[in-house]
Amino acid sequence: MCRWLAYSGNPVLVERLLYGPTHSLIDQSLHSTLGAETTNGDGFGIGWYGEGPTPGTFKSTEPAWNDWNLRDLAAHIRSGLVFAHIRAAIGSAVQLTNCHPFRHNEWLFMHNGYIDGFDRIKRDLTFAVDPSLYPSILGSTDSEVLFNLALTFGLADDPQKGIERAVGFVEATGYEHGVEEPMQMTLAVSDGSTLWGFRYSSGGHSRSLFYSTDVASLRVLYPDLETLNELDDHARLVVSEPLGDLPGAWNEVPESSCGVVQKGQDELRPFKPAPPVRSL
Amino acid sequence: MCRWLAYSGNPVLVERLLYGPTHSLIDQSLHSTLGAETTNGDGFGIGWYGEGPTPGTFKSTEPAWNDWNLRDLAAHIRSGLVFAHIRAAIGSAVQLTNCHPFRHNEWLFMHNGYIDGFDRIKRDLTFAVDPSLYPSILGSTDSEVLFNLALTFGLADDPQKGIERAVGFVEATGYEHGVEEPMQMTLAVSDGSTLWGFRYSSGGHSRSLFYSTDVASLRVLYPDLETLNELDDHARLVVSEPLGDLPGAWNEVPESSCGVVQKGQDELRPFKPAPPVRSL
Amino acid sequence: MCRWLAYSGNPVLVERLLYGPTHSLIDQSLHSTLGAETTNGDGFGIGWYGEGPTPGTFKSTEPAWNDWNLRDLAAHIRSGLVFAHIRAAIGSAVQLTNCHPFRHNEWLFMHNGYIDGFDRIKRDLTFAVDPSLYPSILGSTDSEVLFNLALTFGLADDPQKGIERAVGFVEATGYEHGVEEPMQMTLAVSDGSTLWGFRYSSGGHSRSLFYSTDVASLRVLYPDLETLNELDDHARLVVSEPLGDLPGAWNEVPESSCGVVQKGQDELRPFKPAPPVRSL
Amino acid sequence: MCRWLAYSGNPVLVERLLYGPTHSLIDQSLHSTLGAETTNGDGFGIGWYGEGPTPGTFKSTEPAWNDWNLRDLAAHIRSGLVFAHIRAAIGSAVQLTNCHPFRHNEWLFMHNGYIDGFDRIKRDLTFAVDPSLYPSILGSTDSEVLFNLALTFGLADDPQKGIERAVGFVEATGYEHGVEEPMQMTLAVSDGSTLWGFRYSSGGHSRSLFYSTDVASLRVLYPDLETLNELDDHARLVVSEPLGDLPGAWNEVPESSCGVVQKGQDELRPFKPAPPVRSL
Repeated sequence: MCRWLAYSGNPVLVERLLYGPTHSLIDQSLHSTLGAETTNGDGFGIGWYGEGPTPGTFKSTEPAWNDWNLRDLAAHIRSGLVFAHIRAAIGSAVQLTNCHPFRHNEWLFMHNGYIDGFDRIKRDLTFAVDPSLYPSILGSTDSEVLFNLALTFGLADDPQKGIERAVGFVEATGYEHGVEEPMQMTLAVSDGSTLWGFRYSSGGHSRSLFYSTDVASLRVLYPDLETLNELDDHARLVVSEPLGDLPGAWNEVPESSCGVVQKGQDELRPFKPAPPVRSL
Repeated sequence: MCRWLAYSGNPVLVERLLYGPTHSLIDQSLHSTLGAETTNGDGFGIGWYGEGPTPGTFKSTEPAWNDWNLRDLAAHIRSGLVFAHIRAAIGSAVQLTNCHPFRHNEWLFMHNGYIDGFDRIKRDLTFAVDPSLYPSILGSTDSEVLFNLALTFGLADDPQKGIERAVGFVEATGYEHGVEEPMQMTLAVSDGSTLWGFRYSSGGHSRSLFYSTDVASLRVLYPDLETLNELDDHARLVVSEPLGDLPGAWNEVPESSCGVVQKGQDELRPFKPAPPVRSL
Repeated sequence: MCRWLAYSGNPVLVERLLYGPTHSLIDQSLHSTLGAETTNGDGFGIGWYGEGPTPGTFKSTEPAWNDWNLRDLAAHIRSGLVFAHIRAAIGSAVQLTNCHPFRHNEWLFMHNGYIDGFDRIKRDLTFAVDPSLYPSILGSTDSEVLFNLALTFGLADDPQKGIERAVGFVEATGYEHGVEEPMQMTLAVSDGSTLWGFRYSSGGHSRSLFYSTDVASLRVLYPDLETLNELDDHARLVVSEPLGDLPGAWNEVPESSCGVVQKGQDELRPFKPAPPVRSL
Repeated sequence: MCRWLAYSGNPVLVERLLYGPTHSLIDQSLHSTLGAETTNGDGFGIGWYGEGPTPGTFKSTEPAWNDWNLRDLAAHIRSGLVFAHIRAAIGSAVQLTNCHPFRHNEWLFMHNGYIDGFDRIKRDLTFAVDPSLYPSILGSTDSEVLFNLALTFGLADDPQKGIERAVGFVEATGYEHGVEEPMQMTLAVSDGSTLWGFRYSSGGHSRSLFYSTDVASLRVLYPDLETLNELDDHARLVVSEPLGDLPGAWNEVPESSCGVVQKGQDELRPFKPAPPVRSL
């Protein structure tokens, strides 16, 4: 169980996203309200696009709530596309290589949820990863394997297709091994200009995911909320749990959906796992 | 806010104390039920008497619940006098030098609570520490200063007197600076053969503290509880919160008390702060 | 024993300063050539001016040479005034609060060297720190106490005077306690626009300190060195040990000197400790 | 590049092994003399047999030289079979799951050296690990894969055979991928009663390995060396580099050898990689 937040919009200081509102992501690291586990203290990570061809990341194995480096960096890094993730480890080691977001070239990826029965199917999943990607698997989480499967199955060309095939493959492999509901996930993926958010689970009872109401409407609802003046009309947050206490500000992502935050009109599409056809 | 456990009795594996019962101290690091803060994830420490003239300690800045070193050490260290402490930092840094138990020669000391207004009176308290002890203050907590004040005021000769004078001095200093209720504490102190436990607060609403019922009576109450066969008749636990779910097994330490677990009959005495008389 | 680097000039990526040249500061963390200790693996820190009213810092207790967060941050943070410090602890704990640079409001401070006999005079020195600054001492190093003494003695109004008085006070206190050569230091101090560098020791055999030749002259010496095209004419580095292998690029700061890198002409001034006059 | 030490004999405090002699293993973490890399600061680990059915381990990602927990544990843990390892990472992450010794049931394993071209052949090697062992690979080192290959190929029944087959398999796989000298290693393996040490490299220029002269002879050579009185006649150390400065105390393990420290007469045998025959 984990919690995450993704922001796309005009460049803002990361601290406005992480520490600003009541019930902020950092508050949730100590006490979340919608999760099975209420403490997410097994490390954290942020990723952001700014200088350079690839995004920056900062990760730690300590809880986010008392991390002085995170507070300082958040006050000094400004970005228009930010990922943040707090972790509740279920079994795998608390180490930097298990902290999200994961990065591959210009891509960032983070995950809340799990692959059920991972111990039994980890080997099959890992060996389906493209051999050229295999050495770049550095940690031991199901999430990193899922990311590398999606890269193997074409994420860089079509992120939704890549994820649908990866999830389809995980489900097919899980079912073969008698796992009833192999996949539980909310996911965020980005290449630095577009942000994809996914909500899906094999059993149809996915973990929560929300996106923020468009900023223009929020300004009408909350004319006195100063934070809104910092944001341009295209700014959008996608979060595991609503931040702040603002009725009308958050909208649930439907089950089995993919939301796309992009230049032009944002989209909400159906998500359908597509097990890759295996050649004999 | 913190949680702690102290054990005195026949030598047992530390894991039996930390991980064994439901609602164990390690469970409490993630979710405690009697505390203002329910998560105690800002580091931890254990201390034990065994090999060598001084007790051993092991400390970490990471949460106890997922610490693999702690699990391994607890399974391989056997001792008849064990301290364990999980920390919820309120302001001061998460670093090894701020983790309990603190050690001085053969003495161990740990604390749950705080000195209110510590920022304002830290300087006065610290300069009252004996100059020969001053360089051994390595961290930045109120607890370590309190321990060094008690050492300054005679803890090594008479632990209860040393603590009473230290608390009296803290209260007197606090009142001078307008702090209404300077002291909030449960404390454990040991020299390796006797265990002293204290419960006190300036306002008379101290944090919880419990001691275990004598083992002979427990065997009558719970004839099937195998753990009891491992313990001899003189074994005693003192804890912030009851472990397990055993009616009759835990007894509240009264407000303003000092309990003494020792060879022969254990004792429960009144505790009364005694501000040291200052010479002009 | 430590190593440090300070940069003032046009904004550059921090990685150009830390990782670029052969014999870079990161190389020195593993193997330095001019130090008593050749390994500086007991934590590190960077400080930089950019977003916000106060400088950012990032610190770690792990060696710099293999720190993935540092590599990532250095590739994504651009600044025109950067401090970097690698530590070889001599006695005091390896913890974030002991890592340089230290910060107070807009000021950064870092130190290579030591106060000799610190254990004996720490109490007297710490007592002399202004009571309003006292609670902000978070670690246990001589360096942090020296910084707070300099702040007490007027660093914010006149940095050279503040340091001269602090060093004078340290020396006077040390001599009273029979310490023969109390001070050994190279120091860097900045308020975000000017950079002060100091080289001094009570015995007149100070640790090494170098400043870079002006960029215009370097371009004549090394017309093919591409890095120089990134730097403007006012860029200046001050370092514990020369970086790269560039004859003519580095100039030793003389003993008992203060160098000032500033808008307009940089300066090199004599440095003379000035024990503050004590009132009775 | 790493350094290690293995002890078999009567139970002694771990600190006698790690901190006692000049040029101790802890000294070597900062400055070794026989290694390509002279600093081994990328984490460390100890393993020991004592309480319980499996050995205990303690690992850290910080350098050994300043680790306070290690110093304390070493002063309080007594054992008759001890492994200690200090790491210089070459590429792979500094994290607990990459620290030696590795453990499987009652077995401990540690390695100095590397599998050349590991990035290219990691996938093939990992695939060859028994599927039941696969999920227990927690880190990303070549050493842990080598250990799991040896377990796959029968280490638990015949340690030398298991290692010979694993090394044979690594070499065969490496040669297929154009790696000229795939294996470089000194290894220690134990089940808690016998200690196996290996020295081998594909190119015949293996890293150094030494075993201590029998204690009876040492007592004749060094009648005044008090440490020898603590050791019984069967005590033996196997080390990457000689400890102390004691002519006659250390003997080089020959190239391509396996030394066995056991009840009864110790043995030195030839070591010969044996690629497992593959069925079609």
